[in-house]
Amino acid sequence: MKLNWNERGRGRHMIKKIENYIRENGLLEKGDKILLGLSGGGDSMALLSVFTELKEEWELELHGVHVHHGIRGEEADRDEELVRKACEDLQIPYTCYRYDVQKMAREEKMGVEEAGRKARNETFEDVLKKWQGDKIALAHHKNDLAETMLHHLARGTGLRGIGGIRPMSGKIIRPLLCLEKKEIEHYLKEKEIPYGLDSTNLSDSYTRNRIRHQVLNTMVREVNQEAVAHLAEAAEIAWEADEYLRAMSNMHLEIYSKKTDRGIVLEEEIFKEPHIIRMYVYQRVLELLLGNKRDISRVHMKQIETLIKKNVGKKVSLPYELEARRTYGGILFARKTEAGKLLLEKAILKEPVLLHMDGPTYIPGGKIISRKFVYQGEEIPEKTYTKWFDYGKIKKKLCIRPGMEGDFLIVNREGNKKKLNRYFVDHKVPREDRNKILLIAEENEILWVLGMRISEKYKVTNETKEILELRYEGGK
Amino acid sequence: MKLNWNERGRGRHMIKKIENYIRENGLLEKGDKILLGLSGGGDSMALLSVFTELKEEWELELHGVHVHHGIRGEEADRDEELVRKACEDLQIPYTCYRYDVQKMAREEKMGVEEAGRKARNETFEDVLKKWQGDKIALAHHKNDLAETMLHHLARGTGLRGIGGIRPMSGKIIRPLLCLEKKEIEHYLKEKEIPYGLDSTNLSDSYTRNRIRHQVLNTMVREVNQEAVAHLAEAAEIAWEADEYLRAMSNMHLEIYSKKTDRGIVLEEEIFKEPHIIRMYVYQRVLELLLGNKRDISRVHMKQIETLIKKNVGKKVSLPYELEARRTYGGILFARKTEAGKLLLEKAILKEPVLLHMDGPTYIPGGKIISRKFVYQGEEIPEKTYTKWFDYGKIKKKLCIRPGMEGDFLIVNREGNKKKLNRYFVDHKVPREDRNKILLIAEENEILWVLGMRISEKYKVTNETKEILELRYEGGK
Repeated sequence: MKLNWNERGRGRHMIKKIENYIRENGLLEKGDKILLGLSGGGDSMALLSVFTELKEEWELELHGVHVHHGIRGEEADRDEELVRKACEDLQIPYTCYRYDVQKMAREEKMGVEEAGRKARNETFEDVLKKWQGDKIALAHHKNDLAETMLHHLARGTGLRGIGGIRPMSGKIIRPLLCLEKKEIEHYLKEKEIPYGLDSTNLSDSYTRNRIRHQVLNTMVREVNQEAVAHLAEAAEIAWEADEYLRAMSNMHLEIYSKKTDRGIVLEEEIFKEPHIIRMYVYQRVLELLLGNKRDISRVHMKQIETLIKKNVGKKVSLPYELEARRTYGGILFARKTEAGKLLLEKAILKEPVLLHMDGPTYIPGGKIISRKFVYQGEEIPEKTYTKWFDYGKIKKKLCIRPGMEGDFLIVNREGNKKKLNRYFVDHKVPREDRNKILLIAEENEILWVLGMRISEKYKVTNETKEILELRYEGGK
Repeated sequence: MKLNWNERGRGRHMIKKIENYIRENGLLEKGDKILLGLSGGGDSMALLSVFTELKEEWELELHGVHVHHGIRGEEADRDEELVRKACEDLQIPYTCYRYDVQKMAREEKMGVEEAGRKARNETFEDVLKKWQGDKIALAHHKNDLAETMLHHLARGTGLRGIGGIRPMSGKIIRPLLCLEKKEIEHYLKEKEIPYGLDSTNLSDSYTRNRIRHQVLNTMVREVNQEAVAHLAEAAEIAWEADEYLRAMSNMHLEIYSKKTDRGIVLEEEIFKEPHIIRMYVYQRVLELLLGNKRDISRVHMKQIETLIKKNVGKKVSLPYELEARRTYGGILFARKTEAGKLLLEKAILKEPVLLHMDGPTYIPGGKIISRKFVYQGEEIPEKTYTKWFDYGKIKKKLCIRPGMEGDFLIVNREGNKKKLNRYFVDHKVPREDRNKILLIAEENEILWVLGMRISEKYKVTNETKEILELRYEGGK
């Protein structure tokens, strides 16, 4: 049977729509060398047809590639034959690659469908490289997008997953993503283009078929006829929102993070940003430390989030031997061993260090900066690591040191004392972490438990004349 | 049958979970007066039970309200009886309100389900007001949220709709939204609480039942057992993203918009913001002009978006007699009649106005500000309404005026002239709009077609010694 590929009048409407989509999304440039992924299914035959229509105007060089999965016997051979014949008719160079996907799946311990996808992706990449091509064109359409979105939603996803499939990702372009399956079917019929089975209809693609036939089709039939278009539109919005949130969190990351040779420190100023930005920032930090690992989940983000209200030294375990640890100035993300070292270093401060009353006092892992000034009713800062004290109440020299026997602090206006150890117990600071917490002390009386609270006794009041400001800064 | 409401040991786990959720989301305050919406369905009976457990600790005052829809005959009466009896047992004040929902639906031309919802909402609001209560507690759970999300997705929605139902909206709180239906069923069984039909199972709630039984249940059964929890989590993320985008676009709106007595002007600086921010800003502008109208769709946003690349005077029609119009400085949103007036006013400039070479020249609807300075190789601004000209090329006095016979401009480096009328035709400026476009002219030679282009002849080059900067500003 001879195809009527050349009747260019038919299907022009759809071609126009695709060309607009190509322009809007910058999918093609003049003179591009395009590899066409052709399964022989209807979508891919439409893709082939569309590209032969675009070829001249866009001065494209085309190369058809079919991946034979070595399953579905004669039927698969017929598909291959169909693609080969079509490319021949259209004078498009064509190559077929054969795999035994079932064997691959067994050997590499994956599902047959996953193995098939792997075979296709690797083949396309390989051929593109050898041929020095520019892009790989695939035949995904809006129904694929809608199905992917529903699949991701059921499995659990964020905005990225709701975003589904994109018109362009890396070298892959999907010019048919502006069309619904029914539009493609109409086009195939109008142009009398023969086609085989769609590759996603592989026998084991059980889940995908359930989503298509039961979930999505029910939505179209029973809820809204335009459900596919609506899902695709929502995907677009979710994708854009995700891109925007990524950009914003990268910006915040630049402002609020420090990269050290140990890991990444997020400064606590980030805690004031909205929850969703924090979640994106954590995600980004883990990506920076781990690369694009898939198994960082929202559960981990939520664990990190709990550190905000935890005491210094508290930590959560993350995948790949990472951990996040509450520090004086924020959260440290590091390999478990590295994070340990850092705290160890802080713990070196076994002997008291005398606090300079003006300027910095250096301690392992950071410094305390002092400043004295006359109080004129300014607003008292509510920062965790900048504190104001009533200078008039301070009678002796101040020390920076870990806790020791006999330490106490004043915990209310009535002047009641509380033993430091009791305070640690009440605030659930584990015994082994207590000696890692720094204190500002006047003999046995504690002015400030760093990262936690200051004594009521030294708080600024209406009678305060002079203020001592102490500020902790991490890093060297 | 006597209920064993008082066996407080049972179901404690679920109560704890709900209390955490209440705290996280600030749903209750001590001493709140809570109206309970009780259909008699399982969810609402669980709600009643949960609140009797919380009552003491939170010092709550409760009031049960049942709305009888006047349909489903005896069955509905049994539900009412069930709720009445339970409230009696628990010594909770109770009121039943009776409606003929079918009659309401006929009279107000709405679906029976919509009429039912209206009856319930109005009743709850009324009772709350009369009783001087604080909040209305409803029994929605995660499955309701997941169904709503899928329903919205099928009908077409943005992030807000993906966000679905919220734990708190206005006076309504939904403390069971942290639970799946199956958890509530387990609780009901454990506490042996009797219940009737869920109100959403009203006979005509066809679509909702299809979503529940065919779409959502298929996702759970065939794709992922935790699909309900996953959908609820995605809803949460989408909601947060939406809130963030709203906050960001409000910020941009404050920077880039001017409210006039005619409408709202969005300044063109907004065009540089990401697409999704622009869409949110348009939405917000329309909300400001129209209130929370439902039928502003994404289609309208996209129409507004096309104005960015259109010429001054181009407009798009919007619902409620609104229109958006491309102006010199951005986009004007106004009632159709008002927008018309503004352009008319610009068109008053029938006679040429001499341009001051230093400082502002006032014209109807705005001003042109001139500034001369020595060129020292600064970067030339690429703004639509700020232009630099080679002052040395200007030999005569400059005028601001609409086009006239004989006007021309230089359109390329070779110095080729183009008639102004030809230029307008090429750029598809409708004939009736041409006299509304302002020009800066040296006799018949045009330096600048405002909002469009400047002449090649006057462009700044390496030989330029002195620059004339002209800046157009709209408004009075």
